[in-house]
Amino acid sequence: MFSEDDFSHMKRALALARRSLFTTTPNPRVGCVLVKDGVTIGEGFTQPAGQDHAEVQALKDARRRGHDPRDATAYVSLEPCSHFGRTPPCVNALVEARVARVIAAMEDPNPQVSGRGLSILREAGIDVRCGLLANEAHELNIGFVSRMTRGRPWVRMKVAGSLDGRTGLPTGESQWITGAAARADGHAWRARACAVLTGVGTVRQDNPQLTVREVETPRQPLRVLIDSRLASPLEARIFEGAPPLVFCGRVDADNGSRADALAARGIEVVALPNEQGKVDLPAMLKALGTRGINELHVEAGHNLNGSLLREGCVDELLVYLAPSLLGVDAMGMFDIAAPATLENRVRLAFHAVDRIGDDLRIVARVTAQAPRTPQS
Amino acid sequence: MFSEDDFSHMKRALALARRSLFTTTPNPRVGCVLVKDGVTIGEGFTQPAGQDHAEVQALKDARRRGHDPRDATAYVSLEPCSHFGRTPPCVNALVEARVARVIAAMEDPNPQVSGRGLSILREAGIDVRCGLLANEAHELNIGFVSRMTRGRPWVRMKVAGSLDGRTGLPTGESQWITGAAARADGHAWRARACAVLTGVGTVRQDNPQLTVREVETPRQPLRVLIDSRLASPLEARIFEGAPPLVFCGRVDADNGSRADALAARGIEVVALPNEQGKVDLPAMLKALGTRGINELHVEAGHNLNGSLLREGCVDELLVYLAPSLLGVDAMGMFDIAAPATLENRVRLAFHAVDRIGDDLRIVARVTAQAPRTPQS
Repeated sequence: MFSEDDFSHMKRALALARRSLFTTTPNPRVGCVLVKDGVTIGEGFTQPAGQDHAEVQALKDARRRGHDPRDATAYVSLEPCSHFGRTPPCVNALVEARVARVIAAMEDPNPQVSGRGLSILREAGIDVRCGLLANEAHELNIGFVSRMTRGRPWVRMKVAGSLDGRTGLPTGESQWITGAAARADGHAWRARACAVLTGVGTVRQDNPQLTVREVETPRQPLRVLIDSRLASPLEARIFEGAPPLVFCGRVDADNGSRADALAARGIEVVALPNEQGKVDLPAMLKALGTRGINELHVEAGHNLNGSLLREGCVDELLVYLAPSLLGVDAMGMFDIAAPATLENRVRLAFHAVDRIGDDLRIVARVTAQAPRTPQS
Repeated sequence: MFSEDDFSHMKRALALARRSLFTTTPNPRVGCVLVKDGVTIGEGFTQPAGQDHAEVQALKDARRRGHDPRDATAYVSLEPCSHFGRTPPCVNALVEARVARVIAAMEDPNPQVSGRGLSILREAGIDVRCGLLANEAHELNIGFVSRMTRGRPWVRMKVAGSLDGRTGLPTGESQWITGAAARADGHAWRARACAVLTGVGTVRQDNPQLTVREVETPRQPLRVLIDSRLASPLEARIFEGAPPLVFCGRVDADNGSRADALAARGIEVVALPNEQGKVDLPAMLKALGTRGINELHVEAGHNLNGSLLREGCVDELLVYLAPSLLGVDAMGMFDIAAPATLENRVRLAFHAVDRIGDDLRIVARVTAQAPRTPQS
């Protein structure tokens, strides 16, 4: 159904889309290649929100290079949009340009609009096909797909530990178990996320800035803090710079003044208490989805890590394993209790394994889980 | 110094050597290729101890195929032996066959004989070179090298656990965390070892046979049991079949009768007490070296694993990580205590990482260590 040329042009469209990995939030990353008579006449990828989408970029590129896109084939890594958002619909631009064919890697994941863009193109007499390198396209926009289909971000939890699964000494010492290359790699994953989340425990223990520093990016992700009782010190680094978003549990006499102090600094505090008065984590994910967060990058301690796992709020683990052993009394990765039987363990699937400097990077996805709270 | 043809012939010699991975104990695995006028005229690899070495096999193979090895080049993955052991020296066979050149991957690791075989060949007028694919040759005989240079086996410790570093539930349930492919792979590593070691804790907990069953092998490794107080039940499976070798601490009134009972069954019991009356593990390694054990494969519980690590008796970890999480109260891999500072952690180097079925296999080598005993 697809030719070798189709494959290579779509691969190029995906490579273009990857150039926008750090910048399209909350839009998906899309690449487009225009090919006419076997020659690439225009290329584009999604610009920051409010600016051109990939298709419009590619059409402009073709014209700038003196080509008429009429009768060309457009390879796009996602179904072209059919609605007026901050920019006009891309399908209009393609129809007006009179392209002959559109090959899309995948349909729009939003079930309410999925296929509509392709239909409009077909109705305009354009030869439309879909599904080329769909898996790669899906991976590239896994967060956008998650938000469109589940209303919540794709949650990626980063942990760094030793080969025996320990993240720090009993003293709290944890800097640095992994090497410089792994830390820089971790920042690249931060950079692609729409938001980076941590908890009050990490703020108190490590006082992180939670910004992207080790890789170049024109955009910093939103920083999100889970602090049920608003116990973070106001002088914490996370409150410096662009205002973070803070989720707390109940706001009451105890912490009301701290909520006011944060608000006075322009920091939004959202109270989302569950029955225990702590932050309702699934509700928090929905709230982040509503705010357009596609990929949520978690860098927290083993307590919040455990809570997120137990409440079904983790999709993917990004684990850096260092070539060392820390011992049985060192800190574990996730505060979850052993199941009663192996049958009920948290099940994962290894998605990717790579060597980063002297360390290993393992991407594993949660496939089933039923962890309990430890008795301690 | 070496040509592309040299490389490919030596690669072939190494591939032949690998065919003897399970069988040459206590000899090294060696392959030999004879090449004359650019054509391979004979091939061989080390046969089980007491039978032909690789060079003699290759010479016989050439003659059987109607070729005269005179003026040929011999590619051997290890310096040919120069001493009378259970077979005559290979250097004699090569000199008598009047080969023109010998290319060896590495010298004999035994510092007392290293280079002597090559010297004898040179004195006979043969063009001799050494060092082609030396690293691959060294890896293939890492246990033989260890025994020749350190007088002790290369100790490879196998553990299977979850991504968070846990080997079993608090209940003891541990079968099966990893999958069938990883278990079969583990048997292949058993098969290549000269001996497989476990401890009394594992005998009591899992009652393993400790034999190679999941892969074909004409030879079963020696089974070795560490049982300081001879507390293993006499009906344990490890005492069935070929007699295992048992190391204990002090033999006294308490356990003397059990030592006698084992001896009566043809099972050798070696008392090697350290100051605490437990088995002196470094001395045990020396004893195994004396018995010709090149590679020692350890499959034990976290107590013995920890003791071996603490006493500097581990060279390599063979870690299978399953795609699951077991939780903080599940069993750890090694009973070692966290160091006072990260500076003093057990340091490893990742040697190889592969996916085996749904699991990961990580080979890591110990590069420095100073673990302490846990306080519990």
